[in-house]
Amino acid sequence: MSSLTERKARLIVHGDRPYNAEPPLDRLRATYRTPAKDFYVRSHGDLPDLDEATWRLTIDGGTGTMLELSLSDLRARFPETAVMATMQCAGNRRADMRAVAPVSGDPWDAGAIGTAKWTGVRLGDVLREAGVAERLGFHVAFESHDTVEGHPYGASIPLAKAMAPETLLAYAMNGEALLPEHGFPVRAVVPGFAGVRSPKWLRRLSVQDHPSDNPIQAGDYKLYPADVTAETADPAKGHTIDTMPLNAAICEPGSGAALKSGSNRVRGYAVSGDRAVVRVDVSGNGGRSWVQAELEHEADAPFAWTFWSTDLDLPPGGHELAVRAWDEAGQTQPAMPDETWNHKGYLCTCWHRVRVNVT
Amino acid sequence: MSSLTERKARLIVHGDRPYNAEPPLDRLRATYRTPAKDFYVRSHGDLPDLDEATWRLTIDGGTGTMLELSLSDLRARFPETAVMATMQCAGNRRADMRAVAPVSGDPWDAGAIGTAKWTGVRLGDVLREAGVAERLGFHVAFESHDTVEGHPYGASIPLAKAMAPETLLAYAMNGEALLPEHGFPVRAVVPGFAGVRSPKWLRRLSVQDHPSDNPIQAGDYKLYPADVTAETADPAKGHTIDTMPLNAAICEPGSGAALKSGSNRVRGYAVSGDRAVVRVDVSGNGGRSWVQAELEHEADAPFAWTFWSTDLDLPPGGHELAVRAWDEAGQTQPAMPDETWNHKGYLCTCWHRVRVNVT
Repeated sequence: MSSLTERKARLIVHGDRPYNAEPPLDRLRATYRTPAKDFYVRSHGDLPDLDEATWRLTIDGGTGTMLELSLSDLRARFPETAVMATMQCAGNRRADMRAVAPVSGDPWDAGAIGTAKWTGVRLGDVLREAGVAERLGFHVAFESHDTVEGHPYGASIPLAKAMAPETLLAYAMNGEALLPEHGFPVRAVVPGFAGVRSPKWLRRLSVQDHPSDNPIQAGDYKLYPADVTAETADPAKGHTIDTMPLNAAICEPGSGAALKSGSNRVRGYAVSGDRAVVRVDVSGNGGRSWVQAELEHEADAPFAWTFWSTDLDLPPGGHELAVRAWDEAGQTQPAMPDETWNHKGYLCTCWHRVRVNVT
Repeated sequence: MSSLTERKARLIVHGDRPYNAEPPLDRLRATYRTPAKDFYVRSHGDLPDLDEATWRLTIDGGTGTMLELSLSDLRARFPETAVMATMQCAGNRRADMRAVAPVSGDPWDAGAIGTAKWTGVRLGDVLREAGVAERLGFHVAFESHDTVEGHPYGASIPLAKAMAPETLLAYAMNGEALLPEHGFPVRAVVPGFAGVRSPKWLRRLSVQDHPSDNPIQAGDYKLYPADVTAETADPAKGHTIDTMPLNAAICEPGSGAALKSGSNRVRGYAVSGDRAVVRVDVSGNGGRSWVQAELEHEADAPFAWTFWSTDLDLPPGGHELAVRAWDEAGQTQPAMPDETWNHKGYLCTCWHRVRVNVT
């Protein structure tokens, strides 16, 4: 295993404590399954240093039943399950919003996303073993070993999503044990939801009749209208970001690339939390006209991204490339960043645009 | 019961053979449940005149089992179920697309939509009785008594949607038997899908490993890119319109309304095929700034529209009101009609705009 220092050197590092980093977009687009060492890292505190031999997960089933499970227990008592799923930060593409007005948080480019085959056990199997049945209005609150401003990291998901077959307690990523920065030894994987709802370094699950009251859940990761500021934001009125919206990005060529006139290959990804991407439009002239890209999607992977590519015939001059996707319900993305701007810089879903120079 | 002639007089009639009509928007917005006599009518042939005593539904279960059911059989052999659901034409708001370029089909305003409490039996219960089990890649093809250009009306839905608990064979609407123009005696109700997939005047269901090859299914109701024309359209490449997209409309005031300066009430609906509407933004200045509307939604009705209302303070002059909605995944609508324009005029989801004059 490479060292964390070696892996950091491969990424664009936005901050060291907490450690936040994303891969260059051309490397992100090189493989459908993102290698763990190239996978974006979003952390809110220092990386915990945990020992898998002594690690335990406590489950408070809400019905009096309590379980405490070691990693060996998880492996021995529940069927192993693998799910191909994209993980994405709610702040992915935040940098594009800064062109409108300042936003808080790290200036993620379009690389705060990745796709892996996650292996572990179904969270629903563990909850059922703990005596939990589906109940409307209930939630599963996660608590983790990392510390954020003096409190443990915590977040929650609706119980129905926790019981869904795609939701895992994962101990491996692309067939190898989780790296320390990706939640070793066990993390939640909640496909289709924002990454914030897939806590790493798990230590406790609680089934309860309300969302987690942890500040991460109750205060952060809310979507607000454009006129709400940090001073006026009322978390009770913000929309809790769970399922991620339709989005698309151009990964190659990169911004400012020098191209030769004629046919140029353009490649990227498109993604939707819980719907299929059915069409990707690519423009060589800022959206005045479009061509349809070829799509590439892993079979039986409804929670994984779609890769796309096309050839654009570009004459000499400066051009703005643009991409937008369409989902199975016929929805597409807004054109301009001001249409979705919010002071936290979440869910930047406008057309992704890349300026290139052709000689 | 009023006569069809009396009911036609209440509606804006786009055509008589086939009969297509929609209600005025202020009347549409008057009640959360749309009265049957104010419900839009979309038909593709003449209205069949059927006798409920002799009506029969044939089910070809695909596994050799065949059922033939009378209306009494449906009522006696399956539990009665009611679902509050919005029905909507794929061409709703098509008129807004004509501002960009000509489109085929009737120029629907925003009234090709309505919401009712539908009563009937679950289609899944009937299919299970016929020996049908869920199979990936299978479809249920409907055939109806109306005739379209010499062939029976037909359409299909994926078997998984047919087995879903919300999908009905309905014989009543808001507690009364279906009116002739709404499919008497029995129609399909496929909540969240375009109206075309909820055939009226049913006579046959077939479970099969491919979609219906009826021209309605195989050729029409496909979403194409903007550069595809009637001459170049390849139905095999168009996207089949099933789940309906996020949309919103201003119902009051109407287009061209004369208002008095000061606070003016603005009201309308928002809708999404299978997601919750979480926010509705209303603008009195064409989208330069927005306020959030109050939302009204029936409890336990995930497939029904959201009513919204707000007060706008309007100074004297001409103004463009606009509305856009946000769904639970954080997606919103495109601003301009050219962003979703297609030659068939389907899925017009741009911001709905209404010009008013204030004195």
